Amino acid sequence: MSNRMWGGRFESAPDAIMEEINASIDFDRTLFAQDIAGSRAHASMLMAQSIVDQKDGEAILEGLDRIEAEIRDGSFQFSRALEDIHMNVESRLAELIGPAAGRLHTGRSRNDQVATDFRLWVRDAVDAIETGLQELQAAFLDQAEAHSATIMPGFTHLQTAQPVTFGHHLLAYVEMIGRDRGRFADARARLNECPLGAAALAGTAFPIDREATAAALGFDRPTANSIDSVSDRDFALEAMSAATITALHLSRLAEEIVIWCSAPFSFVTLSDKFTTGSSIMPQKRNPDAAELVRAKTGRILGALTTLVTVMKGLPLAYSKDMQEDKEPVFDALPTLTLCVAAMTGMVRDIVPNEKAMRRAAGGGYSTATDLADWLVREAGLPFREAHHVTGRVVAIASESGRTLDQLSVEEMKAVDDRIDERVKGVLSVAKSVASRTSYGGTAPKNVRAQVKRWRRRLDREAASGRSRKADGR
Amino acid sequence: MSNRMWGGRFESAPDAIMEEINASIDFDRTLFAQDIAGSRAHASMLMAQSIVDQKDGEAILEGLDRIEAEIRDGSFQFSRALEDIHMNVESRLAELIGPAAGRLHTGRSRNDQVATDFRLWVRDAVDAIETGLQELQAAFLDQAEAHSATIMPGFTHLQTAQPVTFGHHLLAYVEMIGRDRGRFADARARLNECPLGAAALAGTAFPIDREATAAALGFDRPTANSIDSVSDRDFALEAMSAATITALHLSRLAEEIVIWCSAPFSFVTLSDKFTTGSSIMPQKRNPDAAELVRAKTGRILGALTTLVTVMKGLPLAYSKDMQEDKEPVFDALPTLTLCVAAMTGMVRDIVPNEKAMRRAAGGGYSTATDLADWLVREAGLPFREAHHVTGRVVAIASESGRTLDQLSVEEMKAVDDRIDERVKGVLSVAKSVASRTSYGGTAPKNVRAQVKRWRRRLDREAASGRSRKADGR
Amino acid sequence: MSNRMWGGRFESAPDAIMEEINASIDFDRTLFAQDIAGSRAHASMLMAQSIVDQKDGEAILEGLDRIEAEIRDGSFQFSRALEDIHMNVESRLAELIGPAAGRLHTGRSRNDQVATDFRLWVRDAVDAIETGLQELQAAFLDQAEAHSATIMPGFTHLQTAQPVTFGHHLLAYVEMIGRDRGRFADARARLNECPLGAAALAGTAFPIDREATAAALGFDRPTANSIDSVSDRDFALEAMSAATITALHLSRLAEEIVIWCSAPFSFVTLSDKFTTGSSIMPQKRNPDAAELVRAKTGRILGALTTLVTVMKGLPLAYSKDMQEDKEPVFDALPTLTLCVAAMTGMVRDIVPNEKAMRRAAGGGYSTATDLADWLVREAGLPFREAHHVTGRVVAIASESGRTLDQLSVEEMKAVDDRIDERVKGVLSVAKSVASRTSYGGTAPKNVRAQVKRWRRRLDREAASGRSRKADGR
Amino acid sequence: MSNRMWGGRFESAPDAIMEEINASIDFDRTLFAQDIAGSRAHASMLMAQSIVDQKDGEAILEGLDRIEAEIRDGSFQFSRALEDIHMNVESRLAELIGPAAGRLHTGRSRNDQVATDFRLWVRDAVDAIETGLQELQAAFLDQAEAHSATIMPGFTHLQTAQPVTFGHHLLAYVEMIGRDRGRFADARARLNECPLGAAALAGTAFPIDREATAAALGFDRPTANSIDSVSDRDFALEAMSAATITALHLSRLAEEIVIWCSAPFSFVTLSDKFTTGSSIMPQKRNPDAAELVRAKTGRILGALTTLVTVMKGLPLAYSKDMQEDKEPVFDALPTLTLCVAAMTGMVRDIVPNEKAMRRAAGGGYSTATDLADWLVREAGLPFREAHHVTGRVVAIASESGRTLDQLSVEEMKAVDDRIDERVKGVLSVAKSVASRTSYGGTAPKNVRAQVKRWRRRLDREAASGRSRKADGR
Repeated sequence: MSNRMWGGRFESAPDAIMEEINASIDFDRTLFAQDIAGSRAHASMLMAQSIVDQKDGEAILEGLDRIEAEIRDGSFQFSRALEDIHMNVESRLAELIGPAAGRLHTGRSRNDQVATDFRLWVRDAVDAIETGLQELQAAFLDQAEAHSATIMPGFTHLQTAQPVTFGHHLLAYVEMIGRDRGRFADARARLNECPLGAAALAGTAFPIDREATAAALGFDRPTANSIDSVSDRDFALEAMSAATITALHLSRLAEEIVIWCSAPFSFVTLSDKFTTGSSIMPQKRNPDAAELVRAKTGRILGALTTLVTVMKGLPLAYSKDMQEDKEPVFDALPTLTLCVAAMTGMVRDIVPNEKAMRRAAGGGYSTATDLADWLVREAGLPFREAHHVTGRVVAIASESGRTLDQLSVEEMKAVDDRIDERVKGVLSVAKSVASRTSYGGTAPKNVRAQVKRWRRRLDREAASGRSRKADGR
Repeated sequence: MSNRMWGGRFESAPDAIMEEINASIDFDRTLFAQDIAGSRAHASMLMAQSIVDQKDGEAILEGLDRIEAEIRDGSFQFSRALEDIHMNVESRLAELIGPAAGRLHTGRSRNDQVATDFRLWVRDAVDAIETGLQELQAAFLDQAEAHSATIMPGFTHLQTAQPVTFGHHLLAYVEMIGRDRGRFADARARLNECPLGAAALAGTAFPIDREATAAALGFDRPTANSIDSVSDRDFALEAMSAATITALHLSRLAEEIVIWCSAPFSFVTLSDKFTTGSSIMPQKRNPDAAELVRAKTGRILGALTTLVTVMKGLPLAYSKDMQEDKEPVFDALPTLTLCVAAMTGMVRDIVPNEKAMRRAAGGGYSTATDLADWLVREAGLPFREAHHVTGRVVAIASESGRTLDQLSVEEMKAVDDRIDERVKGVLSVAKSVASRTSYGGTAPKNVRAQVKRWRRRLDREAASGRSRKADGR
Repeated sequence: MSNRMWGGRFESAPDAIMEEINASIDFDRTLFAQDIAGSRAHASMLMAQSIVDQKDGEAILEGLDRIEAEIRDGSFQFSRALEDIHMNVESRLAELIGPAAGRLHTGRSRNDQVATDFRLWVRDAVDAIETGLQELQAAFLDQAEAHSATIMPGFTHLQTAQPVTFGHHLLAYVEMIGRDRGRFADARARLNECPLGAAALAGTAFPIDREATAAALGFDRPTANSIDSVSDRDFALEAMSAATITALHLSRLAEEIVIWCSAPFSFVTLSDKFTTGSSIMPQKRNPDAAELVRAKTGRILGALTTLVTVMKGLPLAYSKDMQEDKEPVFDALPTLTLCVAAMTGMVRDIVPNEKAMRRAAGGGYSTATDLADWLVREAGLPFREAHHVTGRVVAIASESGRTLDQLSVEEMKAVDDRIDERVKGVLSVAKSVASRTSYGGTAPKNVRAQVKRWRRRLDREAASGRSRKADGR
Repeated sequence: MSNRMWGGRFESAPDAIMEEINASIDFDRTLFAQDIAGSRAHASMLMAQSIVDQKDGEAILEGLDRIEAEIRDGSFQFSRALEDIHMNVESRLAELIGPAAGRLHTGRSRNDQVATDFRLWVRDAVDAIETGLQELQAAFLDQAEAHSATIMPGFTHLQTAQPVTFGHHLLAYVEMIGRDRGRFADARARLNECPLGAAALAGTAFPIDREATAAALGFDRPTANSIDSVSDRDFALEAMSAATITALHLSRLAEEIVIWCSAPFSFVTLSDKFTTGSSIMPQKRNPDAAELVRAKTGRILGALTTLVTVMKGLPLAYSKDMQEDKEPVFDALPTLTLCVAAMTGMVRDIVPNEKAMRRAAGGGYSTATDLADWLVREAGLPFREAHHVTGRVVAIASESGRTLDQLSVEEMKAVDDRIDERVKGVLSVAKSVASRTSYGGTAPKNVRAQVKRWRRRLDREAASGRSRKADGR
């Protein structure tokens, strides 16, 4: 680990300063697997195009295998003097196979190489996030199904507004995550073009086959402009933007969990796995994981800000500034994967306190709008007049400390004699939620239907994901 | 305009403070057209569903027409006391048509209403950006075609690296803008679901027809979860993320233009239309528009930061914090439209100084990699040895102040006798660019082929855009 | 108002696009008072130095007076064709007094002029914030004094941790605001240097007297380097950084208020002045002002992000990018002033629900650490053993649904016989808070002492502020 | 290193997920020296107050010494299961000295402990930055003195505006860094209060002496409110804000260096130490260090954004979100130290190409304003008329391809016969810069005077810094 991480003084000679600021191996070693995969694809293509002969090509491929094994088993010696992962690998290849190693770099440069490596890494990270998000949706669906009729207060301004079901509330997150997955899928499709062969920035005169390397690395096609290929980082920016929005969604649920776990709310209990206790107050459970998920939104937004600010106003094609593109991405995307995993764990184990939720749902005259709507619908009052009547009914209940469904029909009739017995059908929280059957509404039967729709969709996607993998993509 | 904009002291009574912080009419009047369109669709549906009778419904529709006309002709009196655009319109409607106005709000609430209005506005803004980006691509393509063989230096680290063509350089931006358009198209598809009918947050018991209102407003379908419908703002976040990346792309070209316009570079001349002069130095042209485009990236990133920070950690469903979602979007998306228009104007009129560009392209031994590649390709040297030989040849040229193509074959042969006459075919900048014919490379014929490919694509898209409009979408 | 604010399409001719992107008069008219003050100081100095004769100088001063009056009474015609406030004023001056107007610009340029105007504006804004923050501290102190012994739960992880007093909790904000004021004061001192006379960027050969203009405008001294004078914007950056931190502090209290106002907490009641109601649920009070204060932190952070991103990597001395420096500042600093005023209003009127707070304070065995500390202090147990004993005592209370002070001494003795009668002195929440008398601790007598200390400091500062104003500064 | 850093999949059991998201030891080990220093101060105070007896106290101190030695020599075994640096140290202390270790935690908690550690770390980081900034100023002063009369173009819009001296240009950065140092000094003064003894959040009933621990740790005083003490992070926010502005200043010079190093400008040559070469183009020098310094502004702004977003809207006193406060600071402040060191190295070795600079300074009729000012000053023309005459003179020069000082007096007289021989005294770039003697102007004698002023100030500060250190602060 570099000095830098240990903070404090920096009283160095110019050489040490330059190495410290310039060497990227401390973080770009993360790309080793992608770098070797890219080199393999390039070497194979060079052989196929007779740019490198079979003997040299095979030596290169064997050398790359050995280097990958060394890195995986920890025996590889990384060198800061060699600056980056590309030179570390290339230099080791030369040690292993001699001058033939020099042929690997034919028709490519570090610029298209790092662009390829980084895209592959981001693609892997996006795939990991997609897998995690599917699992999170599945966890929500299980809970939503189990709680399709569990009543809780729907809040506006954190004030009780109308009763909803817990299942319906959780399905809101299924929708958010569904859009998040859509964004990652779109980002993946857009990034899935191969920059390898753009060389330093102008392309090359070697008869390379870019279609072949693109296919070998699972890309849909080669990129169409060599300058763009080495200077573009919007594949990272787009993935980071998607990550920021996803993190934001998680932060909203995390905030809710923290509030729901507070003693006055006591709406839910988290499992021990995602809370920490106190040696002195054995009943205490701090929602640490939820708080950390909430906080990490800041980290991901910060990383996006970094990347945008680094790239702003950079002339084409490559500037060293772009070395600063990796650390924010290497930090942010796995951070999101971790947050998704933690949230999935919390959602799976969360236990709602149905009594507390229902009690809160009934507070604040939360069915007042049901009464007003009934007056419009069944008694034919104009909306604004219905509101006025409702306000007076609520006032009566409020003065006597009762809920709306504890009032007698007579008491209500005294306010407006168009009210009759049928009104009792809308004043309890259970009846309120059951009545909201408009498409997308909170009625338990709607919740169950949405769970089914999402399950079918997830199954379909899982099936197509499997077949895509079978195709080698 | 509010006091706030005029800075300075704020020594107000609580009422004035509350009005100042709470009223949104100063900015959400921007939504008037969308608000009225949404109300029209809602009223028509209420009539079709017999929730409102024909007479009241028609009165509502006529009242809305009149209000829209009043706003457009400037005669409408906006009131801060009525807080927002929704109440301003509703209150005027009551003045115009009496109690029937109260029926319009049946089965909806301000929460789904503002969510609908804002989506419609963002969709319009995205469409305006898409139109602008198509025009910008067209401007690039015209210049790229005209300059498919105009040679300029390709830079890394703002140092001359390899010669490229100006047309190829501009096509890099066509690719970027192509991806930008893809992002906006994806964002548009994802946002094109209609929240109207989600009501306050729980749906409604009125027999509304959400498919009908969605279709009337050009949405693909209604949203599937009422809580998500009123609490979601990722349609804005996604459009803003896409806008940030697009702005970043523009900032890179803007930086290049500023540098290219400097006296030492003198690579291009901008037209008078997008520069400002000096009364005292008549020949001076300041690239103001380019500088402003560069700067406005910060503004758009700032607006995205605002929106993310506002939404982070907000519990569902609606919090007043979300009133702060609009101003950053109302500012940022039209800012991008303006930047795109300004850049399109600059690109259309830009005149490259071909002599200065070509001279710079030949500096710095920019064809050294061509020599090295030739040694590998034609003389069979391993890459690293070829580099070594090239370095020695460059040193000879450098010592005598000549470019590589000014050296004789004999002088080069003295360094390595595998060099022969054929090498002259790769040492000039023109031959260098012509040789880079790998897919995506800078060769003029590649540039012309890419221009054709993009023109076909733009024509196709324009045709499908026209047919989409003919469908009323 | 410009088209831009109304969103939508932008299909303009180049001239319109350039005016739209280039003209700043729509926002920099905000600087009119500062611009005229700067011109007055400059004109007086030119006269004093005999660079401009008395007759012309007096004509200029009279013309400036008239222009200021015209702007204040709304009769001034601002012109976008004249681009900015400086040219609008200068052009009107020429209309009013003829060619003598041309002498005003001697020895200055738009670059130092705008730098001066903007500094003066930021200084005014900082002064307004300082006044607001003093009032906010005073409001906190009044409440802290009134509630020096009002008990509430101190939270960690929004879980009850230890009882504290409401007064102590509010004093935490007095400390934060104290540091905020310190930051603004430091920023003000650092910005209070006058750039006027730096001219375009190089200074001037006219025998100007920069000490005189600096003094006339209330600056401490002229700036020392002309290039820095016109290219520096860190006076704005520093004020915006301070504003961001202050906004963040307000957002924390705003979040607490929102949570405290929720039905399950019901810790406080806000006054009607800063809440909004519901026509249908008359008892409902939405904490809109608190939510808006919370949200506006995002707006201020976004503005800071904008400004940093605009200025990043700009070469000296002046680039047009810097025209984008004003709008974020013109928006953010008055936004903070407004938030401070709203928060002051809320704090003044907030009514704690002492019963609910105390009940919550006693939950969760919040005095467990008091018991453990007593065991260490009075019974001599090592800390970790004391924790163990306490855990067992808490478990007994928990199993029987009692609080710690409802246990008998005998029951506790059964766990560890070093416990005796004296322990009763620490187990109630009132005794707990009273015992925490370490410096900075929550004991009511500490709270009262801190209120006194702060009142003395505020009085002292107010006195010195008054004397500073009497000095004309 | 954690899995997380290696990206990719995350398919873990809940325990692994929780450890991954919850444990902070991977980064908060950075605080070990501060943590041990804090514990030492606390233990000594506990002994002095007779809260812990001498024997136990001395055992604790010896144990802490040994732990510090173990960490420094690398033999300490950090454990993720123990989560953080505090528990790692405390647990090892228990192994080393047995139950007495338990007494160390008397009257404190992890909350005030981490707040103390983090403040100490930020203070050290700020001190390191201050030292670096002094050295950077010294480097600028040496170059400014050497180049007090070296002429270069002063730019606006990257267009030649007026000639300035290179020394004057560099002094602009001395001013910026001077303000930066002021901000860090103010931040340091404001943070230098000791939170130790605030305990969990409410203070303590133990008779601790907070003045003593504050003094022992070099703080000016203890903090005044226990809740604020554990929930405040504005010491970090303020240091990060100052760091962002400083980084922004460095980015501006970095941009200039990159442009100045380009072939068309060729204004300066950087030393080999801070550039990288090309094996194939031996004369090439890429300004990597400058580009990295420019880019790292984004990183520091991103870190600030993270921290603000994490803290926004957090209720008091402590939430686990605050664990996310450290990594951005641990990364950003040492990054700035590194950037300052790299920039100092570059400035020390930079060699201006005086010929190229002077040639560029004379281009673009950069002395036109000198002519206009002369006409006002010596010939008595009003400013606007002088501009008009100058414009016509420039046109004559421009048409004949000459500079202004190559025109004859007769040619100029033909435009306006108030022009006479004396005008020759202002038309060369050397005379232009020499004439700008207004305070802060670019005249070489001004530059030398400013160098002297700054040298005296730096000497004075260094002296007072030494005496402060001698005081043990």
